[in-house]
Amino acid sequence: MKTLIVYAHPYDGGFCHAMLKSTIASIEKAGGEVDLIDLNKDKFNPVMDEKDLVGFIKHEMVDPQSIDYVNRLKAADQLVLIFPIWWELMPAIMKGFIDKVFFPGSAYEYKKSGRGMYSLFDNLKATTVISTMNTPKLIYKCIYGNAVQKALMKGTFKKLGFKKVKWFNVSMIKWSTEKKRNKWLAQLDKRFSKKIG
Amino acid sequence: MKTLIVYAHPYDGGFCHAMLKSTIASIEKAGGEVDLIDLNKDKFNPVMDEKDLVGFIKHEMVDPQSIDYVNRLKAADQLVLIFPIWWELMPAIMKGFIDKVFFPGSAYEYKKSGRGMYSLFDNLKATTVISTMNTPKLIYKCIYGNAVQKALMKGTFKKLGFKKVKWFNVSMIKWSTEKKRNKWLAQLDKRFSKKIG
Repeated sequence: MKTLIVYAHPYDGGFCHAMLKSTIASIEKAGGEVDLIDLNKDKFNPVMDEKDLVGFIKHEMVDPQSIDYVNRLKAADQLVLIFPIWWELMPAIMKGFIDKVFFPGSAYEYKKSGRGMYSLFDNLKATTVISTMNTPKLIYKCIYGNAVQKALMKGTFKKLGFKKVKWFNVSMIKWSTEKKRNKWLAQLDKRFSKKIG
Repeated sequence: MKTLIVYAHPYDGGFCHAMLKSTIASIEKAGGEVDLIDLNKDKFNPVMDEKDLVGFIKHEMVDPQSIDYVNRLKAADQLVLIFPIWWELMPAIMKGFIDKVFFPGSAYEYKKSGRGMYSLFDNLKATTVISTMNTPKLIYKCIYGNAVQKALMKGTFKKLGFKKVKWFNVSMIKWSTEKKRNKWLAQLDKRFSKKIG
């Protein structure tokens, strides 16, 4: 069983990276294989330029890095995204991963009715989004409408029919104690040290 | 009176560009001045790298392009953003404009209480976000929680205390008639051909 992790954070000393290391360790401990996409280290360019847009319309990806990412998504049994929430949303580099990798013809097709779409990543049995934020959970939900969950989980993964889409979001990270962080890491370990799906 | 327009679209033949041209024309007709930031044409790099993150923590921007944008924001009386909604959110390049330009010490300061913040762009009398999407408005609101409005307008501009933040969002753009598009352009003209504030 292979897990593709898509990671976005420019700094290796923070809690996002601690969660990345912990998730990899848990998966490998359970006998799973990990393929890691580190968007910042890959120097992924998240900008859709005119060539990409023409490619989107023609259902033909042109960006070699994005084509590589699609192929790795097609080879995975499970998808995990890890990123910090900045200004209530994912960083630009993670938004660009969605913009440039989720192309018609590669990631999904439109239904014959013309209005809905379906995923071409049938291989994915489960998807987990792991995020950190400084905003308290209740404020993020009530004032900022859980914007990441609405746009990414509902508006992208569930819209495409992805199975078992889960959100593991830790809040008030700047003020979190070591005890709290260890509890979160233990929760992640529990999630990823068992069989997928 | 000067309006700073921040525009993000890779293609000049679509309705976002028609709205850009129309907005510029209306402002100039009313005797206003326009400063245009075309993020794609500027080849703006929206990625926060490790140097940027260190700069964020130290309250010292390091990216020359972002510093230039901050200076132009400080010289404007009004801010207008124009972009397409892709996957329920702004394109990566526009998210990166927020990530890399809205820095503590340049765009805002933290309140002495430690939890809230206030804008350093006191000069801005009004901010308008103009967006296009294919999603019907009711579905965007009820299913996807108006994610752009929640994250960008509430979670960024209103959080910082920006005045008169308005959202002009046109929906089902792919299926819109020329008559409908002309009506939207007329609404924009009405909005921008009068005095700011």
